[in-house]
Amino acid sequence: MSVQQPAWNLPQNRTAEPVLKIYNSLTRSKTEFVPRNGRHVKWYNCGPTVYDASHMGHARNYVTQDVLRRIMTDYFGYDVHFVMNITDIDDKIIQRARQNHLLDTFRAETTALSLDLISQIQSSWRTHVRERVGKGLPQDLQPSEGQEDQRWPRLVELIQDKAWKEECLRRDEKFDMYFSSATRTLAAIQIAKSHLEGGRTNPDVAHELIDNSKDILAQSLDSQYYATVTDPAISRALAAHWEGQFFKDMARLRVRDPDTLTRVTEYVPEIVAFVERIVQNGYAYEAQGSVYFDTLAFDRADGHDYAKLEPWSKGNRELLEGGEGDLSSKIGRQSSSDFALWKASKPGEPSWPSPWGMGRPGWHIECSVMASAILGDNMDIHSGGIDLAFPHHDNEMAQSEAYHKCGSWVNYFIHTGHLHIEGLKMSKSLKNFITIDEILEKYSARQLRLAFLTQLWNAKVDFSESLMTGEVRNIELTLNNFFTVVKALVSQARADVTKSDGYHHYENQEHELTSSFHESQTTFREALCDSFNTPAAIDTLRDLVSKTNVYINSRSKGLNIGVIENIARWVGQMLRMLGLGEGETSEIGWGQDNLGDSNINRDELLMPYLRSLSSFRDGVRHLAMQKSDTALKDILALCDKLRDVDLVPLGVALDDQEDGKALVKLVPPAELIKARDDKRAQIDAKAAKKAASVEAERQKRLQRLEKGRVTPQQMFKPPIIPEGLYGSWNDDGIPLTDGEGKELSKNQAKKVQKDWAAQKKLHDEFLVWQNSG
Amino acid sequence: MSVQQPAWNLPQNRTAEPVLKIYNSLTRSKTEFVPRNGRHVKWYNCGPTVYDASHMGHARNYVTQDVLRRIMTDYFGYDVHFVMNITDIDDKIIQRARQNHLLDTFRAETTALSLDLISQIQSSWRTHVRERVGKGLPQDLQPSEGQEDQRWPRLVELIQDKAWKEECLRRDEKFDMYFSSATRTLAAIQIAKSHLEGGRTNPDVAHELIDNSKDILAQSLDSQYYATVTDPAISRALAAHWEGQFFKDMARLRVRDPDTLTRVTEYVPEIVAFVERIVQNGYAYEAQGSVYFDTLAFDRADGHDYAKLEPWSKGNRELLEGGEGDLSSKIGRQSSSDFALWKASKPGEPSWPSPWGMGRPGWHIECSVMASAILGDNMDIHSGGIDLAFPHHDNEMAQSEAYHKCGSWVNYFIHTGHLHIEGLKMSKSLKNFITIDEILEKYSARQLRLAFLTQLWNAKVDFSESLMTGEVRNIELTLNNFFTVVKALVSQARADVTKSDGYHHYENQEHELTSSFHESQTTFREALCDSFNTPAAIDTLRDLVSKTNVYINSRSKGLNIGVIENIARWVGQMLRMLGLGEGETSEIGWGQDNLGDSNINRDELLMPYLRSLSSFRDGVRHLAMQKSDTALKDILALCDKLRDVDLVPLGVALDDQEDGKALVKLVPPAELIKARDDKRAQIDAKAAKKAASVEAERQKRLQRLEKGRVTPQQMFKPPIIPEGLYGSWNDDGIPLTDGEGKELSKNQAKKVQKDWAAQKKLHDEFLVWQNSG
Repeated sequence: MSVQQPAWNLPQNRTAEPVLKIYNSLTRSKTEFVPRNGRHVKWYNCGPTVYDASHMGHARNYVTQDVLRRIMTDYFGYDVHFVMNITDIDDKIIQRARQNHLLDTFRAETTALSLDLISQIQSSWRTHVRERVGKGLPQDLQPSEGQEDQRWPRLVELIQDKAWKEECLRRDEKFDMYFSSATRTLAAIQIAKSHLEGGRTNPDVAHELIDNSKDILAQSLDSQYYATVTDPAISRALAAHWEGQFFKDMARLRVRDPDTLTRVTEYVPEIVAFVERIVQNGYAYEAQGSVYFDTLAFDRADGHDYAKLEPWSKGNRELLEGGEGDLSSKIGRQSSSDFALWKASKPGEPSWPSPWGMGRPGWHIECSVMASAILGDNMDIHSGGIDLAFPHHDNEMAQSEAYHKCGSWVNYFIHTGHLHIEGLKMSKSLKNFITIDEILEKYSARQLRLAFLTQLWNAKVDFSESLMTGEVRNIELTLNNFFTVVKALVSQARADVTKSDGYHHYENQEHELTSSFHESQTTFREALCDSFNTPAAIDTLRDLVSKTNVYINSRSKGLNIGVIENIARWVGQMLRMLGLGEGETSEIGWGQDNLGDSNINRDELLMPYLRSLSSFRDGVRHLAMQKSDTALKDILALCDKLRDVDLVPLGVALDDQEDGKALVKLVPPAELIKARDDKRAQIDAKAAKKAASVEAERQKRLQRLEKGRVTPQQMFKPPIIPEGLYGSWNDDGIPLTDGEGKELSKNQAKKVQKDWAAQKKLHDEFLVWQNSG
Repeated sequence: MSVQQPAWNLPQNRTAEPVLKIYNSLTRSKTEFVPRNGRHVKWYNCGPTVYDASHMGHARNYVTQDVLRRIMTDYFGYDVHFVMNITDIDDKIIQRARQNHLLDTFRAETTALSLDLISQIQSSWRTHVRERVGKGLPQDLQPSEGQEDQRWPRLVELIQDKAWKEECLRRDEKFDMYFSSATRTLAAIQIAKSHLEGGRTNPDVAHELIDNSKDILAQSLDSQYYATVTDPAISRALAAHWEGQFFKDMARLRVRDPDTLTRVTEYVPEIVAFVERIVQNGYAYEAQGSVYFDTLAFDRADGHDYAKLEPWSKGNRELLEGGEGDLSSKIGRQSSSDFALWKASKPGEPSWPSPWGMGRPGWHIECSVMASAILGDNMDIHSGGIDLAFPHHDNEMAQSEAYHKCGSWVNYFIHTGHLHIEGLKMSKSLKNFITIDEILEKYSARQLRLAFLTQLWNAKVDFSESLMTGEVRNIELTLNNFFTVVKALVSQARADVTKSDGYHHYENQEHELTSSFHESQTTFREALCDSFNTPAAIDTLRDLVSKTNVYINSRSKGLNIGVIENIARWVGQMLRMLGLGEGETSEIGWGQDNLGDSNINRDELLMPYLRSLSSFRDGVRHLAMQKSDTALKDILALCDKLRDVDLVPLGVALDDQEDGKALVKLVPPAELIKARDDKRAQIDAKAAKKAASVEAERQKRLQRLEKGRVTPQQMFKPPIIPEGLYGSWNDDGIPLTDGEGKELSKNQAKKVQKDWAAQKKLHDEFLVWQNSG
């Protein structure tokens, strides 16, 4: 090999690959995405606090995160480690779980209806009205100890007073709920009283009374007995229930499960250790069993900045207090911007041991600890809803950087935008609050996702009837029509031609469409590189579909199936990549087995089609059998061909019945083929047997006829019989004497006459046969 | 917002991403892969010459190319345009098609058994034995003109002589085929002779004789009549058949269809123009109607090199002649390294017009032209089997660079390695020749692909029983067991816990396994970047599975389901990416509809049934439309009912076409119902309009008839007209004088006569109507 290959030069990429840029909340601009380790991406997403049903706000947030995650893994090919937490220690969870627990206990302990029960419920109602309605109450209901019992009738009167109710509602819409609750309670009390007056103390009635007053009764029980409830299992049970519901909803929205799920309740020891280290590092202090983060010390320190995401929100008291929770105590806090890392346990709260006594974690520290436990001292991406940016995410970063002694714990912070409903913020009081359950009754998961995809992930989405019935419905229809047409064309091309699938030559139109296709692939990539611009990406797909439709219509029958098939495949692939597909492709294993092994009920799926086919055929047969015409014979032959040729390899058996309605069966094709071949062989064998017996008959007849060739006149004369057997004959040739001239005996004469008559008959038959040719 | 966010620094990727390198035949080394345009990759793959069944060599080549293509698209995320040709003009195709055609014609023209036929077959056998067996024949059978007839019995004797046969077989194994062929022919000749002796000249016996001698007879007919066969359609039909079989085999091997398919027969005008340009550019010359590439001129020219892939093979006569084909003529060729671009047509070859007379393309030029037609003057990747490197690919590059006047038409040339069977080259004579049909009876498509994946794509594969039953079986079992265990554990975890799915906390073991997982992802990527090292990639998956099994066994019940589920998902995903999955995920559309959440492809399942149904219906319609009979009208009505009533709620649309074959579509039933109802409403509206206009017509006619009730004799008399208007009338009742006895004026008389005539007409019409009832 002394001969060398000529030199080869590395090609130049003339149109450089577009680079992924992401809108980063840490810069409020699109910055190039560079992971820290090869193609591995560490990603932490703030998960839900689980104490109630998920709503449209959750849908928007998690579907959007799911879209970004799918683009990163399935389109850009990053190896993403997606971590999400479940916040299962939280003021709202604690309160709701405690109330449910106290109510359940109270209910279980109530074994009979009593006046005491009724007055306890009346009393909790009065307390409630006093607290909630407060200064709105008329003078005679204003709180004043000791006279409450007399005031109940007046309260009832008021609640039933329309004018007063309207006045209250004008002041605060939330009263609505209280009024409907109150009405139910009043009715239940009436029933309970009538039972008692009749001397009946049925526990069922007692429980119904409790159930009808449960909201208010639970509050009242809580204010009396809260301190008795401290078992962490109680709030965990509530959280577990709503966590389950959350993931069910996510599955219905086709949101992929996180790669790693972390629950606060499983990380309390790590939280304690984490807080200890922050204290050691000098960025936190203890006060009466609680530990607070020292924002001022942190902000002052070299290499640290407090509130990187929203430095302008540093002093915002409303946001800060919102982050601390309903049950927070601020005793010993040094600055109003400091926040709790660890909260000393108060009566009625679940608590865990710590160096500072029994307590529970603050909200922000949970995420810092769990993200650090799984991802370490740095992550590429942290995501969450925009309302979490300050103080939650800023506090999370400050804590983690104080712990890891690093300057940047998160490289890219991405926040999904708000959701509005018909132009307004979603809220229970505005009556535009929609749960995921409710929205999925109206629209499909695909339609919802399409709606979000038509908006930028970090922009505010205005979810409206017109968006869904207008743009979203249009996109879906356009794509559905496109896929239907292409599938029909492809299947037609495959079915029409047995040996080859048409003409593949590229004319100008095919070159142009192919160029459009490749340009669309580039535009699509550029859109996703431009901070996941899904609206532009979806537009690119729509444009391509529209160009392909133009091509299909202009080419009519002469079209190049291959080109449109490629385009349809790619468009479908990109839609599925964005999570718009029906099937989840990330299942475990090689992929589904052959149909035979699948769970689907093949019969159920196919039977309607086959019944339709079969009854059509029945009708044709019926018509054709009634007439006589070659056309109709041909129709019958078609019917037989369908049954014996076309349907056999498909495993469909048509058993023709006397009533003209064939029985349809699904049978393994091999069995059917065997049955058909057996039947054919049987028919052949029967035909062969019949042919043999016909032939035997014919031979027999020929022999008989051959026997009749001799005339009866000649039969007793030579050369038929030997010379000298008889001496003389009558005119018919019947012997009269034997060879020696002796007259035949009577018996002999009788026999020759009988033989003569038989031969006469045979000979007559022979003559008929001979004359017939 | 005067407060600014702190500065943010672009992260540093500490472990740089591995870069894809590909073993490039142009450098015989691994070179970095850089596409010319962004992420778009132009790729041309040499497709099959279609004249026979595909075999294991094809399987190895096309499955391996499919693996590389899937890695490029589905793993690295390139937008690949994969072009493949079908060579349907070729010496082997021409010869085989011609022989088949001549034999079919001969058979069709043979209408009776004759001694001539028998001696023609004997003669073709003698010729064959003389040519093939040649010097192996005993003296008394050596060719010598004029005595052949006597020698046939001796030939028969010899062929039946075991010892002679063994001697021949010892010399050449191919004799085996001839002997079995000869035995069949001899038996058929015996039978034919006994028929002739019995005076029977049945054509069935003649055809059986031909069928039993077809191989040899076809050769003999070809040598006599080859010149009569020139229609290109004859060889195209054979090619179309084997092309169809090839793609069926590819589908069973889960090899994806090319994005663009090109057939030589569809590009002949482009080939002529391409050759003309090469002549113009000074790199080719015409000789007696053929055109040859001037390798010396090309090699001498600045910026051009001939035989870049194998410069050391430049003078290899055996390789060069192999590339020219059995039917090649070299008249006028200037150098033995020159090769034909265009071959003057010889008798018995299909031919096309060109400036050099009728002819057909050379082999190498086909690929140059088709690749240029689709991909232009440069492509990123050209692939093919290693046996095509020289001269085919070197000639292809030379031609294209001569045409495009460029220095590098192909940037990366990749060649798949050879396939051996149990250590030996596959060949029919070694009896180790295996068709794809045969191998798929023994192993699954997945097992075959796994076998190829365990070898480097550009290395020689030794396909052996021990590879399949050893390593391949082991890998499959290991993975099957792993998936089964994980699926069982996941389903157990989901079933056991109603509200929450177990404990998710990461202990050391989970951290370790997760690290192993992420390292495996990196190692896997590095393996594929290292010139698609699939054996290393598969090893990585096996190692990870084995580590996960160790974790599962050590953790027993306390294991973290999430971690192993992630790993199992990823392993499955990578296997499917390599084409090892059962289902093809690149189908058209959003993804399958909901069929009980299963991944089944509804279209694929139903379409055969529907096509069967539809073509049955097509046939019935066809018959019924040709006749006129009420029965046939009813049949048509049934056809309409099937389409408009029965199939609509099933979501099946039948679009009747002009050619009598309906287009079958699967459409959401609601859409179909709406379209049908709209159509009906339209028809109803039209019918109502028509009915209204008919009624109006009828009323008008009735009025006119009513007007004719009065006889013309009465029309000018009371009570029809007022008393005293006229004085006297003639016999027809036409007025003569007015009420005052004055004769009517000329004008008046004319008018009443005209009115009378009009009424006469109306009255006659009335009478006809009245009599008709």
